[in-house]
Amino acid sequence: MAFYDGINYWELAKSLDVISWDSYPAWHSKEDGDETYNAFWADAYSDMCRSMLGKPFLLMENTPSQVNWQSVCRPKTWGFHRLTAIANLAHGADSIQYFQWRQSRGCAEKFHGAVMTHANRTDTRVFQEVRSVGAMLQKLDALCGAKTNANIAILYDMESHWAVNAAKGPRNGAIGDNDLMLRMYLPFWKAGYAVDFVNSEMDFSGYHLLIVPMLYLLRADVAKRICDFTKQGGTVLLTMHSGVVDEHDLCYMGDTPAEGLAELAGIRFLEIDPLFDEQHETMRIVKAPFPLAESYRLERLCERVAAEGAEVLAVYEHENPCMPDDLPCLTRHSYGRGTAYYLGGFAEDRFFSDFLISLAERLGIEPALDTTLPHGVVAAARQGADGVIYRFVMNWTREQKSVNLPHPLKDFDTGKVYQNKLPLAPYGAKILI
Amino acid sequence: MAFYDGINYWELAKSLDVISWDSYPAWHSKEDGDETYNAFWADAYSDMCRSMLGKPFLLMENTPSQVNWQSVCRPKTWGFHRLTAIANLAHGADSIQYFQWRQSRGCAEKFHGAVMTHANRTDTRVFQEVRSVGAMLQKLDALCGAKTNANIAILYDMESHWAVNAAKGPRNGAIGDNDLMLRMYLPFWKAGYAVDFVNSEMDFSGYHLLIVPMLYLLRADVAKRICDFTKQGGTVLLTMHSGVVDEHDLCYMGDTPAEGLAELAGIRFLEIDPLFDEQHETMRIVKAPFPLAESYRLERLCERVAAEGAEVLAVYEHENPCMPDDLPCLTRHSYGRGTAYYLGGFAEDRFFSDFLISLAERLGIEPALDTTLPHGVVAAARQGADGVIYRFVMNWTREQKSVNLPHPLKDFDTGKVYQNKLPLAPYGAKILI
Amino acid sequence: MAFYDGINYWELAKSLDVISWDSYPAWHSKEDGDETYNAFWADAYSDMCRSMLGKPFLLMENTPSQVNWQSVCRPKTWGFHRLTAIANLAHGADSIQYFQWRQSRGCAEKFHGAVMTHANRTDTRVFQEVRSVGAMLQKLDALCGAKTNANIAILYDMESHWAVNAAKGPRNGAIGDNDLMLRMYLPFWKAGYAVDFVNSEMDFSGYHLLIVPMLYLLRADVAKRICDFTKQGGTVLLTMHSGVVDEHDLCYMGDTPAEGLAELAGIRFLEIDPLFDEQHETMRIVKAPFPLAESYRLERLCERVAAEGAEVLAVYEHENPCMPDDLPCLTRHSYGRGTAYYLGGFAEDRFFSDFLISLAERLGIEPALDTTLPHGVVAAARQGADGVIYRFVMNWTREQKSVNLPHPLKDFDTGKVYQNKLPLAPYGAKILI
Repeated sequence: MAFYDGINYWELAKSLDVISWDSYPAWHSKEDGDETYNAFWADAYSDMCRSMLGKPFLLMENTPSQVNWQSVCRPKTWGFHRLTAIANLAHGADSIQYFQWRQSRGCAEKFHGAVMTHANRTDTRVFQEVRSVGAMLQKLDALCGAKTNANIAILYDMESHWAVNAAKGPRNGAIGDNDLMLRMYLPFWKAGYAVDFVNSEMDFSGYHLLIVPMLYLLRADVAKRICDFTKQGGTVLLTMHSGVVDEHDLCYMGDTPAEGLAELAGIRFLEIDPLFDEQHETMRIVKAPFPLAESYRLERLCERVAAEGAEVLAVYEHENPCMPDDLPCLTRHSYGRGTAYYLGGFAEDRFFSDFLISLAERLGIEPALDTTLPHGVVAAARQGADGVIYRFVMNWTREQKSVNLPHPLKDFDTGKVYQNKLPLAPYGAKILI
Repeated sequence: MAFYDGINYWELAKSLDVISWDSYPAWHSKEDGDETYNAFWADAYSDMCRSMLGKPFLLMENTPSQVNWQSVCRPKTWGFHRLTAIANLAHGADSIQYFQWRQSRGCAEKFHGAVMTHANRTDTRVFQEVRSVGAMLQKLDALCGAKTNANIAILYDMESHWAVNAAKGPRNGAIGDNDLMLRMYLPFWKAGYAVDFVNSEMDFSGYHLLIVPMLYLLRADVAKRICDFTKQGGTVLLTMHSGVVDEHDLCYMGDTPAEGLAELAGIRFLEIDPLFDEQHETMRIVKAPFPLAESYRLERLCERVAAEGAEVLAVYEHENPCMPDDLPCLTRHSYGRGTAYYLGGFAEDRFFSDFLISLAERLGIEPALDTTLPHGVVAAARQGADGVIYRFVMNWTREQKSVNLPHPLKDFDTGKVYQNKLPLAPYGAKILI
Repeated sequence: MAFYDGINYWELAKSLDVISWDSYPAWHSKEDGDETYNAFWADAYSDMCRSMLGKPFLLMENTPSQVNWQSVCRPKTWGFHRLTAIANLAHGADSIQYFQWRQSRGCAEKFHGAVMTHANRTDTRVFQEVRSVGAMLQKLDALCGAKTNANIAILYDMESHWAVNAAKGPRNGAIGDNDLMLRMYLPFWKAGYAVDFVNSEMDFSGYHLLIVPMLYLLRADVAKRICDFTKQGGTVLLTMHSGVVDEHDLCYMGDTPAEGLAELAGIRFLEIDPLFDEQHETMRIVKAPFPLAESYRLERLCERVAAEGAEVLAVYEHENPCMPDDLPCLTRHSYGRGTAYYLGGFAEDRFFSDFLISLAERLGIEPALDTTLPHGVVAAARQGADGVIYRFVMNWTREQKSVNLPHPLKDFDTGKVYQNKLPLAPYGAKILI
């Protein structure tokens, strides 16, 4: 179950051969028909499931139409099921399975969507759409086991997630560690960059870019591996409220982030100022490492630090005349052959989009499709055992879209070759080779 | 208690000689003083109580001023108690009784309104208003037992209400069957048409128009009686989410609405699409059986059906280019000597007002007063044993109103005869003969 | 704990030698940085603690930065701790103590602010601000035990508070007695008038002005003392929903407010009309005892009374044409050598500000600083055993402010003498002698 806190799936995964998940986004809740946010949320969790064992997962359950348990259970609209099936394949699924084959006569799940409804007919729209996806899958045997080649990793640690959410203060009920993590995943997903998730126990030495959002609970060995990763040429991004407690949920005494991360980032923690939901501060860029806007909006958490060796790239700008005006918000520090960035404020999406994509480009990391994708269109890639690269392009909007192709690509399904422009119908998707 | 779900009052009524209820609308909660909605809600339940045994009921409790248990317990304003008393008579009450005679010194109900307050005075406004209503009632003995002659019935079945609200999906917590029923009652109430409520067990063969809102739980014998009613010349209006489960709450397998209702309406269920609160679809009229607007707004539930014999009167119009544009939303089907209408979408009030009043006029059904009533003014009628027709006209607004009379009528209370115009003071009411 | 309902602190106080409280306002929750409301709330409770034994209290706990248990735990901003310390002294504190000295390594309070943080450093901003306040306190020994000279008392009775909030009706969950009391304290606090709180058992015969907000539960002896207070030349302000029940929570039978208060005020209770949150009525001034606006807004509760001897100063004005237009809302009645005012409607802040300050001026009561204070700047005074008057001036805004001084005053801390103008930095405060 997506983002379920009751079990540490990462720990469970060690004992498993196959990862599966049940994908039930709340589709069609928006008036304008833009499903980008729902798709992003579901794909993030697909990537997480794929990352747990570093191989494709099984999509165990999805509904061909509607569920019965959401507040409002909308059926997937005409053609939409094919789009979600392709998106699941794109992010690592080796199967598209259903709950449920046939609607039950009674009990709680009698109105859950099914391949075969109470009407007992095969001429329903839903049955026909399932049959059509099945026919597509039959031709895609070579995709089974195909790999996702990611150079970017996001560190997501369930023990830290539990600890920061169990803590009293500095923001109760909405510390936002998952939101921060998803904000940092979003621009990569939108631009077609493959991202793996790793937890503290996993080896992340092979990636080019390591994103470490709010690693509140920090074990000494993990701190050392993050430092080593950077020392050997890696690029790391640390954030506020990191390195605060040890594996026993006891605060580190002395300067933090602890266990060498303060030295890695070249900063030292002073205090943390949480904001009310309607409050904001501003990050003003004072030294842009690559093209950035003049300023970005901050919310939720503003951590104040002293720069101790780091270059200050941005400072807090605020309306409070009592506060000093040079408190660092974004810093950069060279460390060995690598670089450590630190972000103190909980930044708006636009910052992560500007900052992270520029950083990935600077590091020579390549997206699934080397082009600028229009809003609502996303891409992903997998590489088969035979070396063939499958490129998936999904249109999550109700509008007709067109993608500029960097080179000619063939529609896997129809065989048609697109030279420059790839047209996408509303809620359309294509698998290209 | 109005619209209380804990008991099937219809079942209980079989063992009773007299029906009574306690009427406590939340009067004066609106800034503009328009009490039309509160009055409509209370009168609907009066009509339901009157319908349970097909005879007048006793108003067991009402307060002469305020209650003590609502979030804000406003006293009935100056003169308002007389208006509510007349409205209760209009909709079938044979008594106006009070809770409570005297305010208690202590405990939970010490601030509930009473005829006699803690001040122990008879010169209070409230005491005087109660005395004045009592004097009016003393002159109205002939009204006792007077009948309501209704040609319209709304089928309201508690077993179905329980079942559709207990179901998981397609809309949890707000399926809206009661709201739909009240929307279909509202235009009749506003225009002064008498409406009976019947449940599945009651005989409805004698009505001209049978409204069947969301009859989710359908027994085979009820379906047969609905079909027979239509076959013999009746007009029936069926809606979405009907004929879904049997009396054991098990879904009918095969085409629905089950047990012959699909054949009656000439349609076949395909799927049901619930909408989020802020979402809407549109019903576009393609063949108006009588003057209607071009389109109406839909909310909550949109049921898609195939027309199998029915004429399509309206289709779903929507912004989703993936959906076909000819899905029927409102249909008509001749059946024996009668006609079956089917409505798939949860329409706005304006639709029911336009559609149902035109339908009633077409069927030759007559309202209490053959005139167009101004906003906030409603009328109802009862016929005494001696054949005298008592007409009740109520002004639920804070404005002075004037009603065009179709023929001269005499004020029961003052004896004054009104020729063409009936003036109504703010919150005023008259009984005319 | 401020405004805690679980214990009658006034009863407990009888057995105590020293009163202490823990002051934790939710500072910095507003976008514009105006802390006036938070300060007002905290100072009101300081005044209450000071009043319980009629002598200074100990501020047992406050945080030098942030707490850990509010929804959002903002640290006191730069310099703000000094301001709160001075405000506490101004309203009767003889100590400024902290929770906590040192942050714990683990458990629930590990992120509660402390003098010494996990970093174990004395060079933190917070440590330095605490040290600076400590240095100031060391010079203020003479302030210990200094008195507050109040001529105004507000009667706040916990037994009545419990009873009116336990009652069902006329407004459930929001009768608002505490809000009314605070509204009547607010203008005095803003203008620098010293106010004591008394409960029913305390002697209030020595005050000039006695404010009695919503004394719902009234004991006969208290009524008598209020009457005697007025008879002997005192000025009293009574309000709606007073004198309703006796000490056993049983309603008085007969005219109310009971036990002579109706005769005192020259009015008689008729009925009480509570308003919904979004509803309002208007009080129209018909005879101004001193300069007042033409009308004021009312909310929550409108009590209707008959004037029986009292002069009507204001009547209810409303949009309901059914209501009489001369119902008294504000009255004045001479009683012995004194005067009794009665207020029927729950008035807006502006009314209390206009009415109460004019009344205090008329009675010759003097504020801490005889000047018009700019918005967000407040003043208070204490008199030491040696006769020295300490005047405290606090700026609760983020703006630079300037106060016109009625006579030269010396800054206790710096020794600087201000002749005409006292400048105040953002969140600045001064102690003047």
